[in-house]
Amino acid sequence: MIVIKVGGSKGIDLDKFIDDFAEIIKSGQKAILVHGGSHETNIISEKLGKPPLFVTSISGYESRFTDRETLEIFEMVYAGKINKTIVEKLIQRGIKAVGLSGIDGKILSGPRKSTIRIIENGKKKVLRGDYTGKVENVNIELLNLLLENGYIPVITPPAISYEGEAINVDGDRAAAVLAYKLKAQKLLIFSNVPGLLKDLTDPDSIIEKIDKKDVETSMNFAKGRMKKKVMAAIEALQNGVEEVIFADARIKSPIKNALSGKGTHIK
Amino acid sequence: MIVIKVGGSKGIDLDKFIDDFAEIIKSGQKAILVHGGSHETNIISEKLGKPPLFVTSISGYESRFTDRETLEIFEMVYAGKINKTIVEKLIQRGIKAVGLSGIDGKILSGPRKSTIRIIENGKKKVLRGDYTGKVENVNIELLNLLLENGYIPVITPPAISYEGEAINVDGDRAAAVLAYKLKAQKLLIFSNVPGLLKDLTDPDSIIEKIDKKDVETSMNFAKGRMKKKVMAAIEALQNGVEEVIFADARIKSPIKNALSGKGTHIK
Repeated sequence: MIVIKVGGSKGIDLDKFIDDFAEIIKSGQKAILVHGGSHETNIISEKLGKPPLFVTSISGYESRFTDRETLEIFEMVYAGKINKTIVEKLIQRGIKAVGLSGIDGKILSGPRKSTIRIIENGKKKVLRGDYTGKVENVNIELLNLLLENGYIPVITPPAISYEGEAINVDGDRAAAVLAYKLKAQKLLIFSNVPGLLKDLTDPDSIIEKIDKKDVETSMNFAKGRMKKKVMAAIEALQNGVEEVIFADARIKSPIKNALSGKGTHIK
Repeated sequence: MIVIKVGGSKGIDLDKFIDDFAEIIKSGQKAILVHGGSHETNIISEKLGKPPLFVTSISGYESRFTDRETLEIFEMVYAGKINKTIVEKLIQRGIKAVGLSGIDGKILSGPRKSTIRIIENGKKKVLRGDYTGKVENVNIELLNLLLENGYIPVITPPAISYEGEAINVDGDRAAAVLAYKLKAQKLLIFSNVPGLLKDLTDPDSIIEKIDKKDVETSMNFAKGRMKKKVMAAIEALQNGVEEVIFADARIKSPIKNALSGKGTHIK
């Protein structure tokens, strides 16, 4: 079993990516797909007159402030438009795909954090009413039921809180929890960069291999969104996943290339 | 097994409806829920600068002209916002709900009709590029897999065409096909009217009982959206469903009331 996460960033050609994913499945590889949708959510949010609000927590992580209205836009884009488009494309390629959000059958559940402490213009501030949280539990029973009957789950945030509220969760970290709960050998995280770079402005500065024991040091190279990806990698590796790969979704045959050595391999 | 369809019309209190649905399930009744989302789709379409275009076919039926852009808005509202909100509310009430569009696992499939002949200002006109169709097949295997394992499917259009394209289908007629393919005893169709009325302006003119053999005559009383509901009823009854009920989603305990006699009962 491998878990493949593809981000929702600009510049990713979903058709090519899904061509590759469908071929991987047809070759007999067991896999599930997890996707994001942040770029498209920003576009739709702007159009709906509810521009996205990104905040930086006091620990230095950037996230989308998600009030209930934002959550519903998030659901529309992630669980509606993007999830159904991916499922449609997989069905066109002969794959029995089933798209599910983390809410469905409580596939992804965890605690909600309704209050966040942020830094704004150098000052600390408390924001309330946030529908954000993190994934702790996975409904493995439902995923296995589908997998054992030949269906390929296509999973997307949001998740569901222990109190039953839909919550925005980080897609990379959700994929990490899915990977270790499903006892996957590998977790592949695709985005619009070639891997973990020493110098963000230089694609040739990619770190090709990282020893599992040195992964925490890699956090020093991670900037912006990559911080959460490295955190997801650490969580996956600490819980039994053998290898985590950061790779470029924009190249030809992105999954096959990542499996045969491209990108940053941590094991 | 009963199939319950709730429309997406204005004035329906989803919380009360779902309270009732959850109680029905907890009482041991096997049921699936099918929902619409037309009113909300109109609102979001307007906000996104893509106002809905309703056309009248030469046979007199009104439908939403669905180009690809409209289809994606439709997916966002039906499969994203409304489906996930219903699943969330069911989970809050202790029901293991799983929301699926007709695309997922090809639950609802049928032919696409890409060209429609319409009447516009009294003139006949041909519109191309329509992503609309009708449901002919149901993936019963996937629905039974979920039902047998205690999951309650919450189903929404769009469906998937035989060529693998997402298509807008009528929710009432999709519910009818689901009902007879699942060998349901009853199909309950809820909307924001008390039932089939002899006089649209008079709620007391409700037709309480219709004999199955007279149902085609009922078409004479059906106006606007009700035409497709009567057509759905005819399809369900002709294919083995014992009883079709048209009932009001806006009243207290709408499902229990419909099952104990309220609304229009056709059998």
